[in-house]
Amino acid sequence: MKLITFTVAGSTRIGAVTNENVVDLNAAYEALQDSQGKIRAKQIAEAYVPNDMTGFLQGGKESMQYANEAIHFALENKEYKGRTLVFAKKDVKVGAPVPEPGKMICVGHNYREHILEMGRQIPEFPVVFAKFSNTVIGPEDDIPFFPISEQLDYEAEFAFVIGKRARNVSQEEALDYVAGYTIVNDVTYRDIQRRTIQWLQGKSVDGAAPMGPWLVTTDELTNPSGLEVVLTVNGEERQHTNTANLVFSVQYLVEFLSNLMTLEPGDVILTGTPGGVGVAMDPPSFLKDGDVVSISIDGVGVLENKVQKAAIEVKN
Amino acid sequence: MKLITFTVAGSTRIGAVTNENVVDLNAAYEALQDSQGKIRAKQIAEAYVPNDMTGFLQGGKESMQYANEAIHFALENKEYKGRTLVFAKKDVKVGAPVPEPGKMICVGHNYREHILEMGRQIPEFPVVFAKFSNTVIGPEDDIPFFPISEQLDYEAEFAFVIGKRARNVSQEEALDYVAGYTIVNDVTYRDIQRRTIQWLQGKSVDGAAPMGPWLVTTDELTNPSGLEVVLTVNGEERQHTNTANLVFSVQYLVEFLSNLMTLEPGDVILTGTPGGVGVAMDPPSFLKDGDVVSISIDGVGVLENKVQKAAIEVKN
Repeated sequence: MKLITFTVAGSTRIGAVTNENVVDLNAAYEALQDSQGKIRAKQIAEAYVPNDMTGFLQGGKESMQYANEAIHFALENKEYKGRTLVFAKKDVKVGAPVPEPGKMICVGHNYREHILEMGRQIPEFPVVFAKFSNTVIGPEDDIPFFPISEQLDYEAEFAFVIGKRARNVSQEEALDYVAGYTIVNDVTYRDIQRRTIQWLQGKSVDGAAPMGPWLVTTDELTNPSGLEVVLTVNGEERQHTNTANLVFSVQYLVEFLSNLMTLEPGDVILTGTPGGVGVAMDPPSFLKDGDVVSISIDGVGVLENKVQKAAIEVKN
Repeated sequence: MKLITFTVAGSTRIGAVTNENVVDLNAAYEALQDSQGKIRAKQIAEAYVPNDMTGFLQGGKESMQYANEAIHFALENKEYKGRTLVFAKKDVKVGAPVPEPGKMICVGHNYREHILEMGRQIPEFPVVFAKFSNTVIGPEDDIPFFPISEQLDYEAEFAFVIGKRARNVSQEEALDYVAGYTIVNDVTYRDIQRRTIQWLQGKSVDGAAPMGPWLVTTDELTNPSGLEVVLTVNGEERQHTNTANLVFSVQYLVEFLSNLMTLEPGDVILTGTPGGVGVAMDPPSFLKDGDVVSISIDGVGVLENKVQKAAIEVKN
């Protein structure tokens, strides 16, 4: 499945993308239950296929199975008792698949060829740092460029999303704990990142994590290795690698991180970025108002966002 | 008010501590509404004084006012229609005041006298890094010591909790956006912190943020400066400073952080630790199974936790 969060008529819901359509999973599962004569259809749908992605992922494989049943029902019943179960994708606003991750954990220095070309040693341990959920925006949103820096930079990242509570999980079992994969642009205010020894402040500005275009579940994308990753700015290729070059694989990271902390459904882990970021160009080339950043990953899709100058406003 | 989260008879709720008692704020506000003939008493209480701290803080000063009214009502009506509104503190389990902060932001190198004694320059910008909410435990919990390191260390921290959504807030207005203050022990696995250039992995182990004993609201603690901070291990003083020595004050940090990101009610900011951590002693002295770590801050209270060897178990 290709799972999204979407908004239609002011209501934010989770959906599955099929061709150019979006199935409203909660509404479809409620309709399926109702069609089977269940008087508590609404409450059952809320329990197993709720309208928020984190809640849905907490349901694990059982909820995934029910979502699949809901899709089959909806494709044969695009409306049910007057309610729309299937929307045209162009008629909805697509948001980030996981709009409020409990944790966003990022890995630095993780592409082998880039580490070697920089003359560095392959690290013994992953470098990990954080973003917060205030950074998350969706595939149809612009990247806000706040006037706090002139050094806005991109970082293409293959990301995975936890689907089952994980503590002390081995590499062998690791993929059972992954719900699926998505793309995140680890947008970075480079000078702010570098003005102290800890990177968080340059990584956690509002809007600095475009995510999408959807969450591809592990039944559809079974192997996270061997995927080409390409980032372009205004069509010009800037980053290009393959997830086979990751020093620390998805499986390794699940083991490593779950040995430290409990990972929860909806946690998002960004696996790192390859060479070619703007600050490393000669001369450095940072993002400007109007630039279009596009990240393509095999088997996942394309995440494309435009940079848009923004004012800092009090959000009340 | 001294706000806590507490558990009684399997139900986790928010409360206010008065002497040796705990007022159940949601139950008390519902009772107050009911006593005024409001048929929707339960729903009104749920809207303004819900059972979770983050939800309550989202209600801002209005909910604080209603909580105060609830306390007055409860102290004159310890039971209402058969329901207990006031518990003896010894009969409940007291948890962390904010068990699930959306963000936990920590400041490093922030005590002037300690920076100077180390021969360092006063920094131009705060060093900030993250913990996640999996680290939070309460004042009656033991600090779990997982067998992943021999270097478990303490860090006494004065912490503030956001009470109003904040973006681009000036120092002058800053305290309007603070709900109150608490104590956090920024427990650190020191060798894990230092094995890479980013500190997150040594800071984010489950249970590595004892918080409490409560959240003291800003009407009770009006000035966050000038407070003595003392940490002891088994009664021996290890850290001692005063919040007047902070390089970056609470007000400065609200301005600095809200210029980067939107701060939300329930976000917890740890302001930094002074000299005297175990790793800096000669020879280094780390925490051991059974050690008792106690942090006392003027106007807030005492947070005391015992270290307890722990196994890593899958939490399902």
